[in-house]
Amino acid sequence: MTKTEIQEQIKEAVEKVKSTTPLVPSITNTVTINLVANAQLAAGGSAAMVYLPDEGEGMAEVGQAMYINMGTMFPIYAETLPRTARRLKEKNKPWVLDPVGIGIGALRTEILREFKAMPPTIVRGNASEIIALANLWGLDSGVAKDGVRGVDATDSVAAAKNSAIAIAKFIHGAVAVSGAIDLVTDGKIIAYSTGGSDLFTKVTGAGCSLGGVTAVFAAVASPFIGALTAVNAYNLAGTRAAEKTIAPASFERAFIDELYLASAADISTNNFTVEEI
Amino acid sequence: MTKTEIQEQIKEAVEKVKSTTPLVPSITNTVTINLVANAQLAAGGSAAMVYLPDEGEGMAEVGQAMYINMGTMFPIYAETLPRTARRLKEKNKPWVLDPVGIGIGALRTEILREFKAMPPTIVRGNASEIIALANLWGLDSGVAKDGVRGVDATDSVAAAKNSAIAIAKFIHGAVAVSGAIDLVTDGKIIAYSTGGSDLFTKVTGAGCSLGGVTAVFAAVASPFIGALTAVNAYNLAGTRAAEKTIAPASFERAFIDELYLASAADISTNNFTVEEI
Amino acid sequence: MTKTEIQEQIKEAVEKVKSTTPLVPSITNTVTINLVANAQLAAGGSAAMVYLPDEGEGMAEVGQAMYINMGTMFPIYAETLPRTARRLKEKNKPWVLDPVGIGIGALRTEILREFKAMPPTIVRGNASEIIALANLWGLDSGVAKDGVRGVDATDSVAAAKNSAIAIAKFIHGAVAVSGAIDLVTDGKIIAYSTGGSDLFTKVTGAGCSLGGVTAVFAAVASPFIGALTAVNAYNLAGTRAAEKTIAPASFERAFIDELYLASAADISTNNFTVEEI
Repeated sequence: MTKTEIQEQIKEAVEKVKSTTPLVPSITNTVTINLVANAQLAAGGSAAMVYLPDEGEGMAEVGQAMYINMGTMFPIYAETLPRTARRLKEKNKPWVLDPVGIGIGALRTEILREFKAMPPTIVRGNASEIIALANLWGLDSGVAKDGVRGVDATDSVAAAKNSAIAIAKFIHGAVAVSGAIDLVTDGKIIAYSTGGSDLFTKVTGAGCSLGGVTAVFAAVASPFIGALTAVNAYNLAGTRAAEKTIAPASFERAFIDELYLASAADISTNNFTVEEI
Repeated sequence: MTKTEIQEQIKEAVEKVKSTTPLVPSITNTVTINLVANAQLAAGGSAAMVYLPDEGEGMAEVGQAMYINMGTMFPIYAETLPRTARRLKEKNKPWVLDPVGIGIGALRTEILREFKAMPPTIVRGNASEIIALANLWGLDSGVAKDGVRGVDATDSVAAAKNSAIAIAKFIHGAVAVSGAIDLVTDGKIIAYSTGGSDLFTKVTGAGCSLGGVTAVFAAVASPFIGALTAVNAYNLAGTRAAEKTIAPASFERAFIDELYLASAADISTNNFTVEEI
Repeated sequence: MTKTEIQEQIKEAVEKVKSTTPLVPSITNTVTINLVANAQLAAGGSAAMVYLPDEGEGMAEVGQAMYINMGTMFPIYAETLPRTARRLKEKNKPWVLDPVGIGIGALRTEILREFKAMPPTIVRGNASEIIALANLWGLDSGVAKDGVRGVDATDSVAAAKNSAIAIAKFIHGAVAVSGAIDLVTDGKIIAYSTGGSDLFTKVTGAGCSLGGVTAVFAAVASPFIGALTAVNAYNLAGTRAAEKTIAPASFERAFIDELYLASAADISTNNFTVEEI
């Protein structure tokens, strides 16, 4: 794919979401669940959040794509998450995994391990989370240690490149690594998207909501295009929001506004470069 | 009741809330729980949210009214919701049911079915939810199918008119159906309230928070007046907020601000019409 | 300590937080969890929220301080909260307890009672909550009754003075009582901090997020200085936010912005007085 072809597909993805309002349910953490839903609505999707096992399965059936974020675990997730992932696999539905908090607690680790057998279409995370997931799944990424500290990354995006490629190849999908320069790969090519703002690190849920919006675009496009469209949209809207304010709460509001107002053409032409692997 | 009498009662309801700050606890979904609480505070009430069975019962006793929203179900709700509804019935307290997600999952269906024996004072929902609830309760509304899709309506408010009347008669209370034109009925008369903004559909929790605010006004007024006061307040504040912005996050903020600033007189004179059934 | 010495320590605490970004995990209610996290980020900390027992223990180990808020109880908290508090005690980590909803439900009461044996470093609450906690722990505060109503205080800060001192002495830490004039004491001296805005009472989570930010400063300072730094920061940012708006949603946004922008010097010189006990 040339960059021009990629841009054309991004444009189509945004237009298709805006014209069809795909239903993209989530199982996501309670900290940022409101922002995830509002970001999905701003991007043009429809949101629905659930916790129970049969509700997860039901959402896997009626949703056009789904988002699973591991940020806050409830006991019932021991049933809900594997059953939902299994149904998503059976129904061949695209879904995005956000392995927030990987390494914290036994249940999260156990479920993330189980997901290897019913893998997501897209994994989105910060550099440390991507490295940790590749290690947990025993994929050869050449990075032995992981550097997750709570929910923050301590590794650079560049350090997670090989882990991202390994995961993308294994899941036959795409991986998006968030950082100063965002990396999106399908295991064959890598796109580096720039823009956004340091203020994203001062808004809880910037990453989570990007995961939710990634699922919205993955409902209408390939994993790679879905992930890159979301990343481009965030970088564009983040750049525009940062032109309006220097403080985090105003930035969050301006960002959602700009995400809603961003045109397909503008999202497709946000600055990114493409590299063959 | 004439329109002028209704307006007078709306004005009194708003004034009474502002002067007495009724305590109106909720059991509500985690997606929009913060907006529900902030909207209740903006309207002049006091909020408190709980999950556990004995806490629900305790809130049913100390609250002047209560709000139950089915948006996100936890396993403990199998106990919490019936026990809370039973206590509300014993104590003869007004409460608002928001049957969000009706049709999704076994637990939600089972509990909504149980509520028929200890019914709410007010039901608030979108058109599809109201139709689905009338069907679940076996009320003759002349509408066989339901069209809930996740949390969004696929039916028009007009299509839900008979279902709303049937539920209102059955519960001896009121039903509010949200849509482009909002319908509020007590089974004898119907009020149609207008205003608001399409941007409400881009803010998660616009409907949920309306349910919470409805419970605030139901603490000091009849079900019909409580429901119509809340709907009028939302249409007024939504109209004013939409004059200030074209984007959803700014709209949400401006809306809560305007809800807080709206006077009793302005809420009572927001545009609505009355129809005898 | 003279007032000048206190101001110097406040300044150091703010600077240390901004330069080291301490990880301060929380177990907190779902209503205001997003605001707690964003306030912690705005103050310069790093946030992570959990619910499960082993996750609470893990956070007690890796966090520099921790925040436990009792606002919404889940069944699993019967295990999570005592195990987390025990680990915090073993590891000698500072932590802040916010006894929101004290008096509601059996589980909350039971856990708050258990905390007496593994006490927090700081207790933050409104006047009624502080009085109720002193009573629950059987501390001699000279105030027999408690006046909690849902989550609102019905007692004045002055009425809670002896309860605050009694708790502070018992836990060998500090107590912060929120109200029109905020009281912070370590059992030996009392600081009264002023500022803020009545609009704080119209924003759900003003108190909860203050608790979370208190834990951030307690990660790098003594309990008394940690608590007073947070209170001063809130009064300063609240005063500045109230200069920009008269409505609650705009106030919430402006407040978080001002909390982020506030300098160490400004926080340390926010108006407060000191009284020897």
